[in-house]
Amino acid sequence: MSVLIVGSIGLDDIKTPLEEHKNLLGGSASYCAVSAGFFSPVNLVGIVGEDFPKEHMALFESRQIDLEGLQIVPGETFRWSGEYMWDLNTRETRSIALNVFEHFTPTLPANYKKPAIVLLGNIAPDLQHHVLDQVTLPRFVVADTMDLWINIAKERLVELLARIHMLILNDSEARELTGETNLIKAGHKLQNLGPGYVAIKKGEHGCLLFGQEGEFFSCPAYPLTDIHDPTGAGDSFAGGLAGYLAKHTGDSEITFDNLRQAVVYGSVIASYNVEAFSLERLKTITQTEIGERYDMFRRISQL
Amino acid sequence: MSVLIVGSIGLDDIKTPLEEHKNLLGGSASYCAVSAGFFSPVNLVGIVGEDFPKEHMALFESRQIDLEGLQIVPGETFRWSGEYMWDLNTRETRSIALNVFEHFTPTLPANYKKPAIVLLGNIAPDLQHHVLDQVTLPRFVVADTMDLWINIAKERLVELLARIHMLILNDSEARELTGETNLIKAGHKLQNLGPGYVAIKKGEHGCLLFGQEGEFFSCPAYPLTDIHDPTGAGDSFAGGLAGYLAKHTGDSEITFDNLRQAVVYGSVIASYNVEAFSLERLKTITQTEIGERYDMFRRISQL
Repeated sequence: MSVLIVGSIGLDDIKTPLEEHKNLLGGSASYCAVSAGFFSPVNLVGIVGEDFPKEHMALFESRQIDLEGLQIVPGETFRWSGEYMWDLNTRETRSIALNVFEHFTPTLPANYKKPAIVLLGNIAPDLQHHVLDQVTLPRFVVADTMDLWINIAKERLVELLARIHMLILNDSEARELTGETNLIKAGHKLQNLGPGYVAIKKGEHGCLLFGQEGEFFSCPAYPLTDIHDPTGAGDSFAGGLAGYLAKHTGDSEITFDNLRQAVVYGSVIASYNVEAFSLERLKTITQTEIGERYDMFRRISQL
Repeated sequence: MSVLIVGSIGLDDIKTPLEEHKNLLGGSASYCAVSAGFFSPVNLVGIVGEDFPKEHMALFESRQIDLEGLQIVPGETFRWSGEYMWDLNTRETRSIALNVFEHFTPTLPANYKKPAIVLLGNIAPDLQHHVLDQVTLPRFVVADTMDLWINIAKERLVELLARIHMLILNDSEARELTGETNLIKAGHKLQNLGPGYVAIKKGEHGCLLFGQEGEFFSCPAYPLTDIHDPTGAGDSFAGGLAGYLAKHTGDSEITFDNLRQAVVYGSVIASYNVEAFSLERLKTITQTEIGERYDMFRRISQL
């Protein structure tokens, strides 16, 4: 089965305390799609300008990513510039140029409209709603979000929660959205807003997965010592998770065990992604490496 | 086998945003000893004044805790008063009265001097050294510490690290002691200072265990929603861990698997401890409850 992915596609300038690189492939949908592509075919919905480098298109095409839903329009591609502080945990946006993204309407090609798995990557809730308006009976809808939308579009985000099966967000966002300090209470509050499943990402502390009837999974973080660029960690987590679900769930109901495995595979892809800038590491990892790191996750959490 | 435990024994006044209680049993050795007592006999080394309530002595006696090493001297028992902030994660010491603890010299009875397992509870590194000076060939020495000793007795603490098998400390202390932001690097740096094993406690995020030749275990946190008093969480973790080791390791070498299980049982005891003030919850938990929560730890971390 394939996964329908919508999100931003952009060109990033990124500065860390040790390195600075410009004109990198970025955007939530780029990370999501390439990450999902390790597991399943992807139908990608997004927008780029005519300046979007051909090499990035070639990367997408080489990864079982269908581009019929990718709009290429006159003008410049979305641009983001950010800087990470000394501990790589906090970052500041230095500039944003929406460019062609400003008037993006995610219109789905006819053959994208009956997706099994939908991943609403991190974009404005209005656009996420618009995608859901066009699909018929999706099996499982996952949505990612960020603090920006909690701040400027909270109402639309909360409306979205009633339309999705699973929400992915980080710990500070979960606290902000629910007003709960305790992450377990925050997870349960989010479930009460709609999604049967909630994944709270905690960076170096791993991830919490909340399921039905008290089902709960605490996924460890891979013990990384050499992080080069945290950009896209959340997107590659979501992409790996959605791609795994599309590959490993047939016509039967998606179970908590499926989701637990999906969270681990998402964590595997995210842990590789931060080892290099942009999608550089995603370009080189092999199925063997994915398997090896999965085994490592199992080993470090086994009682 | 029994475990030798040294630490403070005191009477606490504790205020949280919702409750305030006075004259509670407290001190690192109290929590350590009662927690270890769920698994093995304890030889307790500490000091109290003649005002120390008989009910607390009765509690110790009811829990396979030998009191020959407990000094009861004229004067008042050590007192601590603290207040927790709104999220229960930060606390302020409101007052300390060392009282009889000021001139405490931990002198071991003759039959305490060949211990299998030693737990140096959280007290001044000088006192921890003094205990080690008196024991012969202990199988396994665990030391707990706190930020205070890093700040005022760092040199003696670092000297201690060369004399112990395992160090337990929390994440901010690990960062402070090593100057490393990355907890994985911090763990490895601490190992290079002496202890073959390091456990870094992360509160609501669980615990990391570092072993030999890259051995590593990420222990989840129990998903608590109802924390009443965090006091003694670290001490009960250390006590449960040391007690488990004393019970489950015979004459053979202590393995990483033993330590992994010990970390989980320590986490089980600590997770119960914070459900009520002082040692109230430790007074009531049963072996069945310990087993149930252990199973829960297994279930929430199983891949």
